[in-house]
Amino acid sequence: MLSTIKRLLIGRPLKSTALGEQKLNKTKALAILSSDALSSVAYGPEQILIVLVTVGATAFWYSIPIAIGVLILLTALILSYRQIIHAYPHGGGAYVVSKENLGVLPGLISGGSLLVDYILTVAVSVSAGTDAITSAFPSLHEHTVLIASVFVIFITILNLRGVTESASILAYPVYLFVVALFVLIGVGIYKIATGSIPPDLHASIGTPVAGISLFLLLKAFASGSSALTGVEAISNAIPNFKHPAPINASRTLLAMGGLLAVLFSGIVYLAYYYGISPKVEVTVVSQIAEQTFGRHFMYFFIQGTTALILILAANTGYSAFPLLAVNLAKDKFIPRIFTARGDRLGYSNGIIMLGFLSIVLIISFHGRTEHLIPLYAVGVFIPFTLSQTGMIVKWVRHKPAGWVSKLVINSIGALISFTVSMMFFITKFEQVWSVIIFLPLIIFIFHRIKKHYESVGEQLRLSTCEPTMPIEGNVFILPVSGLTHVVETSINYAKSLSAQQIIAVYIPFEREDETIFVEKWKKWQPDIRLVTLHSPYRTIIQPLMKFVDTVERKARESNYQVTVVIPQFIPKKGWHNILHNQTSLMIRTRLLYRKNVIVTTVPYHLKK
Amino acid sequence: MLSTIKRLLIGRPLKSTALGEQKLNKTKALAILSSDALSSVAYGPEQILIVLVTVGATAFWYSIPIAIGVLILLTALILSYRQIIHAYPHGGGAYVVSKENLGVLPGLISGGSLLVDYILTVAVSVSAGTDAITSAFPSLHEHTVLIASVFVIFITILNLRGVTESASILAYPVYLFVVALFVLIGVGIYKIATGSIPPDLHASIGTPVAGISLFLLLKAFASGSSALTGVEAISNAIPNFKHPAPINASRTLLAMGGLLAVLFSGIVYLAYYYGISPKVEVTVVSQIAEQTFGRHFMYFFIQGTTALILILAANTGYSAFPLLAVNLAKDKFIPRIFTARGDRLGYSNGIIMLGFLSIVLIISFHGRTEHLIPLYAVGVFIPFTLSQTGMIVKWVRHKPAGWVSKLVINSIGALISFTVSMMFFITKFEQVWSVIIFLPLIIFIFHRIKKHYESVGEQLRLSTCEPTMPIEGNVFILPVSGLTHVVETSINYAKSLSAQQIIAVYIPFEREDETIFVEKWKKWQPDIRLVTLHSPYRTIIQPLMKFVDTVERKARESNYQVTVVIPQFIPKKGWHNILHNQTSLMIRTRLLYRKNVIVTTVPYHLKK
Repeated sequence: MLSTIKRLLIGRPLKSTALGEQKLNKTKALAILSSDALSSVAYGPEQILIVLVTVGATAFWYSIPIAIGVLILLTALILSYRQIIHAYPHGGGAYVVSKENLGVLPGLISGGSLLVDYILTVAVSVSAGTDAITSAFPSLHEHTVLIASVFVIFITILNLRGVTESASILAYPVYLFVVALFVLIGVGIYKIATGSIPPDLHASIGTPVAGISLFLLLKAFASGSSALTGVEAISNAIPNFKHPAPINASRTLLAMGGLLAVLFSGIVYLAYYYGISPKVEVTVVSQIAEQTFGRHFMYFFIQGTTALILILAANTGYSAFPLLAVNLAKDKFIPRIFTARGDRLGYSNGIIMLGFLSIVLIISFHGRTEHLIPLYAVGVFIPFTLSQTGMIVKWVRHKPAGWVSKLVINSIGALISFTVSMMFFITKFEQVWSVIIFLPLIIFIFHRIKKHYESVGEQLRLSTCEPTMPIEGNVFILPVSGLTHVVETSINYAKSLSAQQIIAVYIPFEREDETIFVEKWKKWQPDIRLVTLHSPYRTIIQPLMKFVDTVERKARESNYQVTVVIPQFIPKKGWHNILHNQTSLMIRTRLLYRKNVIVTTVPYHLKK
Repeated sequence: MLSTIKRLLIGRPLKSTALGEQKLNKTKALAILSSDALSSVAYGPEQILIVLVTVGATAFWYSIPIAIGVLILLTALILSYRQIIHAYPHGGGAYVVSKENLGVLPGLISGGSLLVDYILTVAVSVSAGTDAITSAFPSLHEHTVLIASVFVIFITILNLRGVTESASILAYPVYLFVVALFVLIGVGIYKIATGSIPPDLHASIGTPVAGISLFLLLKAFASGSSALTGVEAISNAIPNFKHPAPINASRTLLAMGGLLAVLFSGIVYLAYYYGISPKVEVTVVSQIAEQTFGRHFMYFFIQGTTALILILAANTGYSAFPLLAVNLAKDKFIPRIFTARGDRLGYSNGIIMLGFLSIVLIISFHGRTEHLIPLYAVGVFIPFTLSQTGMIVKWVRHKPAGWVSKLVINSIGALISFTVSMMFFITKFEQVWSVIIFLPLIIFIFHRIKKHYESVGEQLRLSTCEPTMPIEGNVFILPVSGLTHVVETSINYAKSLSAQQIIAVYIPFEREDETIFVEKWKKWQPDIRLVTLHSPYRTIIQPLMKFVDTVERKARESNYQVTVVIPQFIPKKGWHNILHNQTSLMIRTRLLYRKNVIVTTVPYHLKK
């Protein structure tokens, strides 16, 4: 039943040798890896205006120089990441780059930030997309959490089916969004050029603004930079590209950078020229679209594709999170279960974990995840800074051909990323302070996990472990609850293994019960020793444990091994289990926590 | 840790021999077994007025004859149950009485109704009490579900501590409530007698009322009868009484009947004389209290004790449900886990189950359980009818001394109970129809459970089961994942048991891996046969299962027994478990579902 549903949802399992077929070409890669970055265009320009509006509409002209700053930052990041892709062709996430060049701690800071960040990406973008939908259909508003969770589950299933299949489905909406915005920007500029937009809607560039401060401009710049989250996704996901992976990845990165630059500056310019003010209930893009096309087909088309791409931006998290988790798990900083490929060759445990944690976030914030955005931006710019710095160290250390120009690019990238991170801490401290607590905590957990794995490895290695004691003989303990077929089977089994001692243990709650049972036993199994342990507190576990302890202590003296044989009913139907006290399960769990006691389960399959 | 918390909450375990000390005297028994019945006074009279108000305030005088009807019903029930107590001194719940005299099906109808009913009792009364509190403190209103759930948990813990301890704590509020209502009724009647209440507030008895109908009066009567739910509790709980149990129980029953009659008629009379109309936001008792005392101390005292007794009414369910469950479980109609006494000698599984299911009900109805009241009343009057009918059959069959008068009493009880049940079906069908679906379903489940237990007993009995095959030899299968200390221990164990065959199984995902491992193995354990099973789909379970199947089929031919030896890591700290893929657990679970394969778990205790 369950496995049929699984097949239906994620498809038949794939052989390990089919891995090559699951790789992405550039078109598909651009779609699924840049949806996060491109979708930022839908809210990035607005973030700038929201800060500027606090000193008045005349300040809006500052959005133009701020946008130029963002474009410079974008260029620096794209060029830097291009260099990272070529230097780390097997997937150079910020984690790998920082760890290799700066050391383990910077690596873990990058890795930890990004791990949390991808969860935020999914939660924030799906919530934003759901908001766009519920704004259009207010009756759905009370179901926001449910709708967002269903979207997360849908994207999770798509990703479990495999990266190429999800790319095929997700590519259309991404390209539709790009086309829609190109049309919007094109028509908008045409209208401005032909003079059908009055030129007095905006203050001209250079107009003096009362109350403007450097702090405010920095805050606006930091807010605008949140549009750049997601540009690191491609460098993480190089292993998903078709051969030659680094070249394909680098071209995809350039294409993404170009698209992002055009769309971002187009929207900022139109917003400035139209003199658009940010409103609570209508987004900036929506206002531009309405003024350009009126409430006609194109307006709704733009609104629809925007909602869609916001939801699909989550997919970038799904591409990057599992690969980052694999890298961390290979280095033993997180559970090794994340390195296992699932039926469809994706790292399914990472995918499921990401979906699960995002839903937890969505539920705990009741789908109102907007104020997580600054946190999320910080979580991106910290690893940006560290990986660029790592590259600087790399160039200085190895000095390959043309290293000076490479050094310059990465230095600019590092400097700007660092500045933006600091701006977030300075201008939005009340929203990002939790990073200071969570990041050290996560790193502490990473170290604890690694310590555990290393100590386990040490204990298991044949060369270093304690020498195994030879087993001189075996004692079998059989807890019995009655004179039944199951007990008979267990006794036969113990006998066939030529155990040196077989002890049956009966635990009565009442004294009368005890004598009757002893009598019956003597008649039925005269050659098997029976021990009765009266239990005044009506518990089977405690007297049995005490008895096993005693036997084990004695057995150990002469290098004997104690085995406890527990019969286990296997009912024909699953629901029957609730009709049987799960005593054997409890006994087994408790016994396994004792030293040197082996637990043997004799299943008894009920036929009816 | 967990066991310390358990001790703190429910106290140290008690020996089975301490059972006698846990019995109730009459004062405590009256308090904890009649809280349900007595609390009905807080809403029973109101229910009558709510029906009558639909034809106008002049109809309120009908509440007097209706109350007389209810008192007659009460008298009949008290006398009938007194007879049941003496006839069934070991606890004569409706289930036992109906089953013994009428047959299994009527018994199960009674038992099933009551089982569900006690859950409804808890949910409805705790919700009602919580409502009383949130009416007083409206800011708590949004936390209704949480508050109600906390109350249920509190009462559950009290009952897990044991019946006498909960009685000691719960007795005070019950007696305070009784005293408060006595004062209210006394002062009220004094004021009427001294003429300080104007006599023109009510229509005099016999005033003709337009629109009154027999149907309406029956409906009002049925609603008023809901005040009688809970009178059967004492007859279920005879085993909880001090010696001589039946006599003490019977006296407690009479005392309860007397109190109930006085309080019920007092409230109905005051409501009638004061001309009180039922209101949505203020209860009838609250209106009477306000008119009698003004908003002074006594008013708030009455409100407080009413809220308290409504919550404590739940406790009646806790006294009766576990005992009924024991009776049903002894007859194998519900899981036998309900027959086990917990640490404090209460039937703790029944108590926990009742608490859990009540919370489920409270959550699913968002704490708005008022419209479950009719359902709950029907669930009481069906077993009332059946047990009285059972008693009729008993008297006719055995004809003891004075049986005719006993027969008359039970016949009246049966007739009135039957009439009330029918009234509920006729006048409130839209609220009680679900009984017709749920009751047959519950009885079907009861039968399925009994059938399963009987078939298991049949299969286990030595006289009837298939003869056990002798075991001629043993094959041990050892799944191995590397050359480690754990594998060494398992091999030593298998060798020490002189197994005829030991097969190590290795399951590589990659071909290269396979050859390397085989080479290493040959050097390390040359005398143990190694089988490798290449798994292209990266799963360990499936190839292993197939292999075990093959070996087992072959082994069975020569009466050999197959044992699979699985090493299990036991980390030092609980949280470490998530760092290890729980493969051994999965393998064990899957293997146990196969025939004739015994599973041996070799624990490997990590020391760090």
